[in-house]
Amino acid sequence: MQRSLAHKLIGSHLVDGDLVPGTEIALAVDQTLTQDATGTLVMQELEALGLDRARTEVSVQYVDHNLLQTDEKNAEDHEFLRSACRRYGLWFSKPGNGVSHPTHMQRFGIPGRSMVGSDSHTCAAGCLGMLAIGVGGLEVALAIAGQPLRIRMPEIWGVRLEGRLRPWVSAKDVILEMLRRHGVSGGVHRIIEYHGPGLAGLSAMDRHVIANMGAELGATTTVFPSDSAVYEFLRAERREHDFEVFTADDGASYDVTETLDLSEVEPLIARPSAPDSVVPVREVAGTEIGQVVIGSSANPGLRDFAVAAAMVRGRQTDPRVSFDVNPTSREILADLTRIGGTLDLVTAGARIHQAGCMGCIGMGQAPAVGQNSLRTFPRNFPGRSGTREDSVWLCSPETAAASALTGVITDPRDLGQDPPRPVLPERASVNTAMLVPPLPVERAREVELVKGPNVSALPEFPRLPDRLELPVLLKAGDDVSTDEISPAGARALPLRSNIPALAEFSFTGIDQDYPRRAHEAAGGHAVVGGANYGQGSSREHAAIAPRYLGLRMVLARSFARIHWQNLVNFGIVPLEFDDPADYERVGVGDVLVLDDAPRAVTTGEITIRNTSRDLVVRARHSLSPRQVDTVIAGGVIPLIATRP
Amino acid sequence: MQRSLAHKLIGSHLVDGDLVPGTEIALAVDQTLTQDATGTLVMQELEALGLDRARTEVSVQYVDHNLLQTDEKNAEDHEFLRSACRRYGLWFSKPGNGVSHPTHMQRFGIPGRSMVGSDSHTCAAGCLGMLAIGVGGLEVALAIAGQPLRIRMPEIWGVRLEGRLRPWVSAKDVILEMLRRHGVSGGVHRIIEYHGPGLAGLSAMDRHVIANMGAELGATTTVFPSDSAVYEFLRAERREHDFEVFTADDGASYDVTETLDLSEVEPLIARPSAPDSVVPVREVAGTEIGQVVIGSSANPGLRDFAVAAAMVRGRQTDPRVSFDVNPTSREILADLTRIGGTLDLVTAGARIHQAGCMGCIGMGQAPAVGQNSLRTFPRNFPGRSGTREDSVWLCSPETAAASALTGVITDPRDLGQDPPRPVLPERASVNTAMLVPPLPVERAREVELVKGPNVSALPEFPRLPDRLELPVLLKAGDDVSTDEISPAGARALPLRSNIPALAEFSFTGIDQDYPRRAHEAAGGHAVVGGANYGQGSSREHAAIAPRYLGLRMVLARSFARIHWQNLVNFGIVPLEFDDPADYERVGVGDVLVLDDAPRAVTTGEITIRNTSRDLVVRARHSLSPRQVDTVIAGGVIPLIATRP
Repeated sequence: MQRSLAHKLIGSHLVDGDLVPGTEIALAVDQTLTQDATGTLVMQELEALGLDRARTEVSVQYVDHNLLQTDEKNAEDHEFLRSACRRYGLWFSKPGNGVSHPTHMQRFGIPGRSMVGSDSHTCAAGCLGMLAIGVGGLEVALAIAGQPLRIRMPEIWGVRLEGRLRPWVSAKDVILEMLRRHGVSGGVHRIIEYHGPGLAGLSAMDRHVIANMGAELGATTTVFPSDSAVYEFLRAERREHDFEVFTADDGASYDVTETLDLSEVEPLIARPSAPDSVVPVREVAGTEIGQVVIGSSANPGLRDFAVAAAMVRGRQTDPRVSFDVNPTSREILADLTRIGGTLDLVTAGARIHQAGCMGCIGMGQAPAVGQNSLRTFPRNFPGRSGTREDSVWLCSPETAAASALTGVITDPRDLGQDPPRPVLPERASVNTAMLVPPLPVERAREVELVKGPNVSALPEFPRLPDRLELPVLLKAGDDVSTDEISPAGARALPLRSNIPALAEFSFTGIDQDYPRRAHEAAGGHAVVGGANYGQGSSREHAAIAPRYLGLRMVLARSFARIHWQNLVNFGIVPLEFDDPADYERVGVGDVLVLDDAPRAVTTGEITIRNTSRDLVVRARHSLSPRQVDTVIAGGVIPLIATRP
Repeated sequence: MQRSLAHKLIGSHLVDGDLVPGTEIALAVDQTLTQDATGTLVMQELEALGLDRARTEVSVQYVDHNLLQTDEKNAEDHEFLRSACRRYGLWFSKPGNGVSHPTHMQRFGIPGRSMVGSDSHTCAAGCLGMLAIGVGGLEVALAIAGQPLRIRMPEIWGVRLEGRLRPWVSAKDVILEMLRRHGVSGGVHRIIEYHGPGLAGLSAMDRHVIANMGAELGATTTVFPSDSAVYEFLRAERREHDFEVFTADDGASYDVTETLDLSEVEPLIARPSAPDSVVPVREVAGTEIGQVVIGSSANPGLRDFAVAAAMVRGRQTDPRVSFDVNPTSREILADLTRIGGTLDLVTAGARIHQAGCMGCIGMGQAPAVGQNSLRTFPRNFPGRSGTREDSVWLCSPETAAASALTGVITDPRDLGQDPPRPVLPERASVNTAMLVPPLPVERAREVELVKGPNVSALPEFPRLPDRLELPVLLKAGDDVSTDEISPAGARALPLRSNIPALAEFSFTGIDQDYPRRAHEAAGGHAVVGGANYGQGSSREHAAIAPRYLGLRMVLARSFARIHWQNLVNFGIVPLEFDDPADYERVGVGDVLVLDDAPRAVTTGEITIRNTSRDLVVRARHSLSPRQVDTVIAGGVIPLIATRP
């Protein structure tokens, strides 16, 4: 049989299981990526696991989220991370070096390798022919400790690209077209594999844009072949020696197939407040805006900034608009400066911010309530900007720059300009001085972890009790994101290494009163969810923090992949309604009883009594036997601790 | 008599009084400057005053403090300020355009003009031969409304500069030498006038550094002559038509005289946590550091950044150090980029932040507890960085850059480099597109103020009661700054337009429990202070917010000028101990009684009964009759409201 690239990559890393969709497989992990907002917990987990030395080929800790430093907490976390990298043999990417995904691609990405990362956009590395999967922090910790990644074998979704993008249309419009077609859960339990003649017109960084936002489709990951575009990229980064060809066999078969004609894609935009609320820009043109932001891992390339710079060159952005620019990395800012783009942007009125995620993760750049903000970011979930009633749109750099010039949403084709064709340097200004390499193991063993007062110990998580009797404290709708379960933003993010403090923010995006009720319900509680529960970021805080407050069970219509695994990892039982209509038969305040819970979870015959309404609700789960053991033990850490 | 420049400038603006030190004078005001952290209140005051149109030659509202935008509040304040500028006929300097003082100097500063600004570093404009005085916001509002500024006529302190600065020594070291000699209250009730042959070696921007930090000496203001250096500056800014010579007469007499030989100044540094805790850099060389920050209005010039860039060119900053760079303004960032300095800094590992005050006002860049942070800023009061137990040092860009390279405090002369001599462009890249001009008056009258939910109405302030019976809720030591009375930083600053919310931060730098006790003491309360009470920033919030909580009287050893006036402006009685030793005879919890308070304040015969200790304390004030009326009326706004 002709094999897809995804099957080849999985096959070359398979240590357990078979390539049958829906069954559990185990994959060897070559590389890991952590960022600071999730990484502090990963380092605490390495400590809890008693790790001596990272066993991966490459593990890199980036600092790109918590950069505002409005008090001592961020700087203390940075020192903790630096010390943990020294202790465990990880690379440390200093604050200011750049956003993890593009920086990893530039410095460490190698075609054919596997990677897990505690960031949902880890999948971006698929642009280089890597098998890169965003997971919870604990699974990254286990991978660093040498354990394989266990996932459900996904379906492979072959997307054949044809044609070429037309002027003013770019990679962001391609992934917005995918979101328009398939929505935020269209990729769940699938790997998206792009192939076909249309690839020839997409650079590696273009593919990064598309692979990155595969996360917004809910996909396990995205893969592109390693071809001449990847060679060109690695050569520009002075790493051509890391190049190797990886492609699908001609005529490879896919579980799901689709064709996308690039020449038919037009400038698109996602309306507030969902990444799949996509319409053509022309349909909303003329809408007044107050802010435009360029940057983030969803449009990270030098090309993205250079295009915007060329469009605003010699002009001024609209006086009503704040034009914010977040350079991706030190390297890209240096190269943009070298080719004159920084000067063009500054002269046109840009506020140039430090290199990092910044507003994409709600670290600053919050708009006024109701003020339309156009961003080249991957996500616009409600409140993620830091503003409770925000109005954030997602678009390409072309659409963003055009709108910054006019002060209203503008289809870039309507500017009357010639399409910009910025000339990029053949070689990037590679500079690794802000990447601190691992210490030799002997010196590493002498390193003490530097734990400031903001770095708490991991809480303890007891076993699943024999009988669950849990009040329902919250009932969520469909597509609730982890931003709503455990918020990002400048108030909560600095507490990511301090679970007791962070827990007080749990679910406050939906219900300000949840933490108080959870404290009151001292014997534990349950939450009810809709479909695609827990979409978005990989933060395991969305499991640990409510767990710390007593959450023991989530009963939902369906789950997003990473959050579902995070619930398991921390001993929260993730159950699905057997009959989705039963969602209506459980309300806030109802008390749910599950007798003989460990046995029920083991057998899968789960009958929940809603004692408040005197009725029963049948539920199921899709846990593997290993995951059942994990949930019963109270999570991965107690499970490992109980083993000899 | 040969006249000083200060006397000439005062004389040409005098509308009431005589040039007798200690007596009240009134000065016509040509220009005003407001920044966003104080300006929102100024605009609310203009509304309360019923202003139709600004009566000054030039009034400019800058947005340089609240730039982080961690939630909607900052952006809403920006919109409010923009609308108020449109309504009242002010210039609006957009977020990202730059820090008020250097930007004002570049675009609006005119030799011989007078200016008041609601920022304590307004005095920086003295570098151009202006008479520029930092005051509370209400006085700026009155100036915008066409009223003269009333101040106590200061002494004139002539500082004769001789010699030339040696290599590696720069303007910051000069003002640090002044602080070493005279301390943070050495300039109280004085105008510092620099003159003499040493001026020839100081550019207008060098003088800005020295004039700016005259605020740290407690001076009313600082003046430099308008000479060829000022001409060169205005020419570079394409404003040579605004040049005019203003100098002291030869042999002018001064109330106080001093000589400073520039050739004897060496690299200096202010230790944590006072600007006058100054020692030679060599005495603390080798101290390990974790952060270096370059920028702020205390080292704002292109030269300051270009020197640092030249020093780090082709090298890497130490891996343990976060090297943060805050460009002063769009213009300076553009010019720095043009001459290659931005690229040098980025390549050496700098985190380049948006143009603005940033860490100088505690908006980000907070270090870890105990981590030594070297900054080219004007202030290092405790906690101002955003970190409660911070360790901030103040130094020149040369010392900062040298230390960033080595990771320890380093005298730049010890680097073994040749002194950098960056070549600056003859003409600046002037670009006014982010400066929105005033609307024509007819259109202005149609503008509605845009008040988001964060913009509260001004509280009402009742008259001074006949009898004060006030518990002492807090007893402060010497040199308490307004940072400790009403903190800056990322948590409190966004509430500057919302007095009830901001009030909850009052005095929390000294005593977390003060707001609670103040709410309990519903009948009002008093605070006892040491010497130089209320030094530092001009924020009138340090008066209004405690006043909102019931503060009616401050009894101190002595007051800093601006805060003293702010207390008067909002109806708080500022009294001084007749006998400073009586400070020991009043404690927290004591109840102070002042019978027939309005008469006592009017006659100046003030006998306070400490009923808790059964003793009396005699006090005095130095209020003018107008100020007495103000305090009795409850403050300036009720005073104006009661007049026909």
